Amino acid sequence: MRFFSDNAAAAHPKVMEAIAAANRVDTAYDGDALSERLDGAFSELFETEVRAFWVTTGTAANCLALAALCPPYRSIFCHRDAHIEVDEAGAPAFFTGGAKLNLLEGEGAKFTVDVVAAACERIRADVHQVQPAAISITNATEYGLVYRAAEVAALGRFAKDRGLAFHMDGARFANALATTGESPADMTWRAGVDALSFGFVKNGGLNAEALVLFRPELADEIAVRRKRAGHLLSKGRYLAAQILAMLDDGLWLDNARAANAAAQALAQAAPKRLTYPVEANEIFLKVSSAEAESLRMAGFDFYDWGPGEIRLVTSWDQRGEEIERLTSAIAAL
Amino acid sequence: MRFFSDNAAAAHPKVMEAIAAANRVDTAYDGDALSERLDGAFSELFETEVRAFWVTTGTAANCLALAALCPPYRSIFCHRDAHIEVDEAGAPAFFTGGAKLNLLEGEGAKFTVDVVAAACERIRADVHQVQPAAISITNATEYGLVYRAAEVAALGRFAKDRGLAFHMDGARFANALATTGESPADMTWRAGVDALSFGFVKNGGLNAEALVLFRPELADEIAVRRKRAGHLLSKGRYLAAQILAMLDDGLWLDNARAANAAAQALAQAAPKRLTYPVEANEIFLKVSSAEAESLRMAGFDFYDWGPGEIRLVTSWDQRGEEIERLTSAIAAL
Amino acid sequence: MRFFSDNAAAAHPKVMEAIAAANRVDTAYDGDALSERLDGAFSELFETEVRAFWVTTGTAANCLALAALCPPYRSIFCHRDAHIEVDEAGAPAFFTGGAKLNLLEGEGAKFTVDVVAAACERIRADVHQVQPAAISITNATEYGLVYRAAEVAALGRFAKDRGLAFHMDGARFANALATTGESPADMTWRAGVDALSFGFVKNGGLNAEALVLFRPELADEIAVRRKRAGHLLSKGRYLAAQILAMLDDGLWLDNARAANAAAQALAQAAPKRLTYPVEANEIFLKVSSAEAESLRMAGFDFYDWGPGEIRLVTSWDQRGEEIERLTSAIAAL
Amino acid sequence: MRFFSDNAAAAHPKVMEAIAAANRVDTAYDGDALSERLDGAFSELFETEVRAFWVTTGTAANCLALAALCPPYRSIFCHRDAHIEVDEAGAPAFFTGGAKLNLLEGEGAKFTVDVVAAACERIRADVHQVQPAAISITNATEYGLVYRAAEVAALGRFAKDRGLAFHMDGARFANALATTGESPADMTWRAGVDALSFGFVKNGGLNAEALVLFRPELADEIAVRRKRAGHLLSKGRYLAAQILAMLDDGLWLDNARAANAAAQALAQAAPKRLTYPVEANEIFLKVSSAEAESLRMAGFDFYDWGPGEIRLVTSWDQRGEEIERLTSAIAAL
Repeated sequence: MRFFSDNAAAAHPKVMEAIAAANRVDTAYDGDALSERLDGAFSELFETEVRAFWVTTGTAANCLALAALCPPYRSIFCHRDAHIEVDEAGAPAFFTGGAKLNLLEGEGAKFTVDVVAAACERIRADVHQVQPAAISITNATEYGLVYRAAEVAALGRFAKDRGLAFHMDGARFANALATTGESPADMTWRAGVDALSFGFVKNGGLNAEALVLFRPELADEIAVRRKRAGHLLSKGRYLAAQILAMLDDGLWLDNARAANAAAQALAQAAPKRLTYPVEANEIFLKVSSAEAESLRMAGFDFYDWGPGEIRLVTSWDQRGEEIERLTSAIAAL
Repeated sequence: MRFFSDNAAAAHPKVMEAIAAANRVDTAYDGDALSERLDGAFSELFETEVRAFWVTTGTAANCLALAALCPPYRSIFCHRDAHIEVDEAGAPAFFTGGAKLNLLEGEGAKFTVDVVAAACERIRADVHQVQPAAISITNATEYGLVYRAAEVAALGRFAKDRGLAFHMDGARFANALATTGESPADMTWRAGVDALSFGFVKNGGLNAEALVLFRPELADEIAVRRKRAGHLLSKGRYLAAQILAMLDDGLWLDNARAANAAAQALAQAAPKRLTYPVEANEIFLKVSSAEAESLRMAGFDFYDWGPGEIRLVTSWDQRGEEIERLTSAIAAL
Repeated sequence: MRFFSDNAAAAHPKVMEAIAAANRVDTAYDGDALSERLDGAFSELFETEVRAFWVTTGTAANCLALAALCPPYRSIFCHRDAHIEVDEAGAPAFFTGGAKLNLLEGEGAKFTVDVVAAACERIRADVHQVQPAAISITNATEYGLVYRAAEVAALGRFAKDRGLAFHMDGARFANALATTGESPADMTWRAGVDALSFGFVKNGGLNAEALVLFRPELADEIAVRRKRAGHLLSKGRYLAAQILAMLDDGLWLDNARAANAAAQALAQAAPKRLTYPVEANEIFLKVSSAEAESLRMAGFDFYDWGPGEIRLVTSWDQRGEEIERLTSAIAAL
Repeated sequence: MRFFSDNAAAAHPKVMEAIAAANRVDTAYDGDALSERLDGAFSELFETEVRAFWVTTGTAANCLALAALCPPYRSIFCHRDAHIEVDEAGAPAFFTGGAKLNLLEGEGAKFTVDVVAAACERIRADVHQVQPAAISITNATEYGLVYRAAEVAALGRFAKDRGLAFHMDGARFANALATTGESPADMTWRAGVDALSFGFVKNGGLNAEALVLFRPELADEIAVRRKRAGHLLSKGRYLAAQILAMLDDGLWLDNARAANAAAQALAQAAPKRLTYPVEANEIFLKVSSAEAESLRMAGFDFYDWGPGEIRLVTSWDQRGEEIERLTSAIAAL
C-alpha cells in the first residue's frame, strides 16, 4: 500500500479517456484545438485573463517562471526546504542562468513577511551582493501546511512594495484550495501572484502540469523559453487534454478533497505524533524505527524523514480500505 | 489530408494500449518496472550494452547528449540546416552552457568527412578561437536523405582521430534504417556514434523519445542533466511503456517502412519535380505557387519551402487512399 | 620591427605618468575620484549624457554590452569575420547566457542594411527559430575598413525600425574617426548606437578600455554584470587614469592619426598589392611566401593571412624609420 | 587615515618600477617574456611544477578555478561568509554555469572537517539533490583567522577521500603565511589544494592576481576559460611584471608582515573588544556607535560591521604614525 508519494499514483480514468480521445491527427506543438482552449479554461477558473502553458514537470513550470521573473544576476527568496532548493537538482540556476536562491527559515516550509523583510535588510544595496528579484512560495508547502489567501496577499504586498516578482509553486495547489475553500483568484493574482505552477500530476494527471501567467505580457518569453528548454512537445494535444479533463466539472478539486480527507483520517489516528499540523495531504509522524518497521511489515510503503520521523502522503486514488488499515495500524502502535 | 509533418500524426494503437496498461501505481520517476526494462531492450536491439533514457522531445534528447559531449567553451560541427541549428530555439547553447555550432555545407543537409576536415583546418589552435569537441549528424537528414552505415563510419573514424565525440540526431532513425536495411548497431556504435537521439514520436509514439548512450559511463551525467532540465517526469512509466511497445516485434521499423513507402509512391508521381532524392519519408518538390494552391484546394495540407518548392512528409498512419489521391493530384499538375 | 598587431605596442608616456600619479590611497573599486570623472569626460566628448565603465579588455566591453542588449534566447547580427565571432573564444555566448551570433557577409568585414534585412527575412517568426535582438558592427572593421557616420546611421535606423539594439565594437574607434574626421556623437548615438566599446589599449593605453552607454538606463545592469564577471577591479583608479590621459587634449585622436598615417605610407608603397582599401591602420597585401620570407629576413614581424596574403598593422608608436624601411622593402619586392 | 580595506592601498614602488620597465613592445597576450616566467617563478616558490595565470581580480581567479573544478550541476562547499558567497555578485554561478554554493557554518568564516562531513551526510545521493564536487576555503579568512597547514591538510584528506576538488581563496594568502611561518608548499598542494587564488592586489600590487594550479592538467581549460571570460589582457606583460616584482626577494611576505604587525599593534590596544582573534590583518572590535563616531571624528576611516562592531583592516603601506594614533585612540575609548 503506497503512502510514499502522491506522484506515483495512477492517472484518473477521465484523464485516460481524454488522452484516448485526443488520439487523432491535429496540428503539432501547441497549435491544436485542445491546447488553444487552455487560456480560456484557466481564464475562466481564475476570473481574469491569464495565459497558460502545458509542461510535463513541476520543475519545468517552476523554473520557466523563475527565469522570466528573475535575471541571472539577481536572487529569489524561497524557503530552505522549498522543492526548488532541495529537489530540483539545481534547475533554477540552470533555467535562470545562475540566479541565486536566498534561503529563508520558517516552520513547516512556510515563511512570513517578517522573515523575508529581515532577509532583505541583510543585503547591502551594492554591486557586490546579489540583489533580490523575486519571491517563491510553495502552496501547499513541502510539509503539508497551507498559506491562506490573506497570508499570500501579505507576501504579495511586500513583494510589490519592494519591486519583487511573486511565484507560487502549486504542485499541490489543489490540496491547498480544497482545505481553505478560497477561490483560485483570491489565492493567486488577487494576492499579488505573478505566475503559478499549477500541479496536476500528483492529483490524477498523467504527465501534464500547467504554468499559469497572471501577467500575460510574460507569455512570449515563456513560449520561447519552453521551446529552448526542450519542453515544447510536438503532440501537445495529449497534455492539453489531460488538463482540460482535470478542470472539467472540478475534478481537480474533487481529487484533492479525497486526498486531503484521507490525510485527515490518518492524522486523527495519532494526533500526538504529528510534527506538523495536517492541512493538505502530507502527514509527518514521530515514529520509532521499530514502529516504522512494523508498519512496513504490515505492507505500508512510505519514506523515513530523518531519525524517528516518517512521511505519509495520501493520493486521490487511495482506497478507503487502505486508509482504514493504516489508521488502525498507526493507532495500534 | 495532412502532409505537413509526421510530428502531428496519431499515436499507434499499441502505444495507446501500452499507456493504458501502465496506468497503475508504481514507483515514481524512472524507478518503475517499465523504465527499468529500457536499458535491456535497447542493449538487445543494439547488440551491445547501452544506457537508455526516456525524454519527451527530440530537442531534449539532442541537447542533453550534446551537453555531455561538449564543454561550454568548445564547438559542435553540424550541418547548416540541422534541426539543432535551425529549429531548436538555441537549445544547444542553453543545455551546453554556450557551446557553439560550427556550421557545415552539404547537399540535402548531409556532409562528408572532407567538409568537416576542411572546417577543422580553418580553426586556429589557440585560445582565441573556439575549438571543436563534437560532430552531430541527423539521420535521416532534414531533407530526407540517408547516411549509409559506411558513411557514418567514415565520419566516426574522423571523429575518433581528432578526439571529437559523435552524436546522431535520429528523429527519423527508423526511416533511415528502413531504407538501408542495415542494423541498428552498424549504423551507430560500430560506426563510432557515442550517443543517439532515437525518435519515436514522429513514428507512432505519443510523447516519448529515447536517448541511447553507447558510452555507458556518460549515464550518470545524463541522469543528472535530465533532472536539472526538468525532464525527469514523475510518472516515467507511461513513457517507457510507449517505447517498449514501439520496440516490441519491430513496430518501429514497420511504421517507418509504411511512411517510407508512401513517400516513394509520391516521389514516383513526379520524379522530375524532386529537388532531393527521396530516401526516407520527406519529399521536396518544385511546384509553382499556383500548383501549390491547387493542391491545397484539393484538401492537401503541407508546407511551402521557399519560393517554388513544397515539402511533403508522410507518416506511419497515412491512409492508402490519401496517398493515392495525392499521387494522382501531383501527377496531374 | 613589429607590424603584427597594435595590441602589443607600448603605452604612451602620458598614460604611464597618469598611472604613476594615481598611485595613492583612494576608495576602492570605482568610487575613487578618477573613476568618478569618467561619465563627465565621455559625456563631454559625445555631447550628450552617457555612462562610461572601465574594463580591461575589448572582449569584456563587447560582451557586457551584448549581455545587456540581448537576452539568452535571442540573436545578434554581426559579420562573419567580426572579432566577437572569430577571436573571443565564445565570450558572447558566455556573457549573454547562450545568445546566438547570426553571421552576415560583406567585403572587408563590413555589411550593409540590405544584408541584415535579408537575414531578418530568412528568420521565421516563431518559437522554433532564434529571433534577433541586436546588431553589432566593428568600426574600424577587422579588415581596416571604416563605416562612415551615414552608413552607421542607416544601420541604426534599420535597427530602430525592427526593435533591435545596436552595438559598436570600437577597438579601433579612434582610427575610424581619425579617418573620417566625423564627430564621436555623429558616429555613435546620433546614428542610433546604444553602446560603444571604446578601445584604448591598441592606441596607447596600458590595460584600460571603456564601455560607453548611450542609454544610461542600462548602467545599473552593466555595473552588476561587470562585477559578476570579475571585471570590477579593486583599484579602478589606475584604469580611469589611463582613459582620462588618453582623452586629455585629444591624445586618443593624435595617436590614431599617427598609426593611420603610417598605414597610408605603407599602402602607397604597393597599391596594386592591396586586397582591401586602407582606411585605418591595417594593411592586407598580396605577397608570395618567398616575398614574405624576405621581409621577415629583413627584420619585419607580421602575420600571414591565408596563402599569398599578409597583414600589417601600424601603431601609434611606430617610428618613422621603421615605416620608411618597410615602405622601401615592400616597394622593392 | 584609511583602515576600511587593504584593497584601496597604493601599489608598492617596486611594483610601479616593474610596470614602467615593462613598457616596451613585446608579444601580445601572455606570450611575452615576463608572462612566460610565471610558471617557473611559482614552481620555484611552491617547490613543485605548477601552472600560473595572471588575472586582474580575485573574483576572476576564484571563479575560473571553480569552473574548472566543479561542473554546472554540482556544488561547492564554502563558508556562509566566504567572499565567493557574499561579495562576488554571484560570479561563481556565472563562471561555473550554475553550480551551487553549499554553505557551511564555523566561527570566523573558518570551518572544520566535521562540519563539511556533516553537510555531506545531509545530501541524498540521488539525481534530485545537487551532489558536491569541491571545497573552497579562504585563507586568511574573511574574519582574519588563519588555517594552519595541518588544518588545511585535514580538509584536503577529506576532499580526496570523497572525490572532491579543493580550492583556496588566498586573497590574503601572504598574510596567512606571514602568521604561520609555514611554507607555501605545505599550505597548499602538500595539504591537498588543487588550485590557489594568490592575491597580490591587497598586498602591494596594482592590478594583478595569480591563479596557481597544482594540477597542471587543468591549465588548458583555464587558459580557454580566462579568454572566454574576457580576462586575457592583450598586454599581459604589465601584470606579469607586477607579480614577478612581488615574488622577488620575498616582497610579498615582507608586505604581509608589515600589515600583520600593524594589526597586532591595534589588537593589543583593546584586547577585550576583539570579537575574533587577530591572526592576519583584520581587526573586528566591539565599539558603540558613539565610540565609532569619535574615531571617525579623529580622522579614521573604517566600516561598521553590524551594530556595535567595526572592522579595521591594515595594509602594507600603513604608516607607523597612523597606527600609533589609532592605537592610542582605541585605547582611550
